Amino acid sequence: MKLSARNLFKGKVTELKQGAVNSVVKVDIGGGNVITSMVTLGAVEDLGIGVGDEVTVVIKSSDVMLAK
Amino acid sequence: MKLSARNLFKGKVTELKQGAVNSVVKVDIGGGNVITSMVTLGAVEDLGIGVGDEVTVVIKSSDVMLAK
Amino acid sequence: MKLSARNLFKGKVTELKQGAVNSVVKVDIGGGNVITSMVTLGAVEDLGIGVGDEVTVVIKSSDVMLAK
Amino acid sequence: MKLSARNLFKGKVTELKQGAVNSVVKVDIGGGNVITSMVTLGAVEDLGIGVGDEVTVVIKSSDVMLAK
Amino acid sequence: MKLSARNLFKGKVTELKQGAVNSVVKVDIGGGNVITSMVTLGAVEDLGIGVGDEVTVVIKSSDVMLAK
Amino acid sequence: MKLSARNLFKGKVTELKQGAVNSVVKVDIGGGNVITSMVTLGAVEDLGIGVGDEVTVVIKSSDVMLAK
Repeated sequence: MKLSARNLFKGKVTELKQGAVNSVVKVDIGGGNVITSMVTLGAVEDLGIGVGDEVTVVIKSSDVMLAK
Repeated sequence: MKLSARNLFKGKVTELKQGAVNSVVKVDIGGGNVITSMVTLGAVEDLGIGVGDEVTVVIKSSDVMLAK
Repeated sequence: MKLSARNLFKGKVTELKQGAVNSVVKVDIGGGNVITSMVTLGAVEDLGIGVGDEVTVVIKSSDVMLAK
Repeated sequence: MKLSARNLFKGKVTELKQGAVNSVVKVDIGGGNVITSMVTLGAVEDLGIGVGDEVTVVIKSSDVMLAK
Repeated sequence: MKLSARNLFKGKVTELKQGAVNSVVKVDIGGGNVITSMVTLGAVEDLGIGVGDEVTVVIKSSDVMLAK
Repeated sequence: MKLSARNLFKGKVTELKQGAVNSVVKVDIGGGNVITSMVTLGAVEDLGIGVGDEVTVVIKSSDVMLAK
């Protein structure tokens, strides 16, 4: 299955903080870049995400801004 | 000025494709990762973005999904 | 591969309109509901999306609003 | 009042989980499809959303991805 | 009908630029603030939006960032 | 540093409510308009945002809907 989202980066979970309905997950994608993701607690439980796991970060192009 | 967006990655513009009102900008952020961004044509013109320019990619955490 | 996005709906492409950098894709997900998606032209070409194709619609929960 | 959002689906609230500032609301839109929405706690209180209520799900086209 | 989106601002359309599938609409919401919106061409046609029209701008809280 | 986001509005923080991982921040941008923002708790702490602070609201055009 391929995704229309143009941004897929493989990485390793380095931090996980859970709230009541949301979770913050930090993923090291290499090159010194760590991406912070806010997903539902249900998603973290359903995918069984834990620190050290290999995951893929997915970002839609229209959600990416630029600064110069 | 600091941004609330948790994801800021420095990179170099590798490709630029302009439509009537939107533009696709590809940015190499290192580590073998290239991010695709869809921003308004007005933004590209206002910031004077061209291939080879150094820019910063900005992504809000709530726009980052995960796959496992 | 499982996605953190909580909304995955299978459907059939009923309409496709291409712009210079973006494309509008309409997908019938059953129950009388047709979802309109705006994705990059690159995504449509990369996934080889055409009218009649079976696709899966993916939506992050934080992008879903309610009205009452 | 009409909305620019192209995706409006009527449904019934089947589940409601409240956090400190956000709420997860599940809405059955028919055809076997249940949509998960993350909205502010303030929105749930302001609209008076409860299980069994009829609501309309609203999604902007640019927030809809595809997989194939 | 009330919306879960916490940000609703009344204003007047001051500019409209149409692409192949998207449109840029600028709306003066008072206080010296003009909001730029990117919506589908279909939405502009369906709502019959033109320069000078009174419209309501709608923004989900999770799409609002801060800088300081 | 300039941002591709087309919507930047200066304002004053009027309310702040913190959850476990997210925070709701209300900002008065003048003209009788108050914008509600949902950002991570980490962002509020990192930027040191408090009631009465002057901040800039940042919104990407593709996240702005219209109603008429």
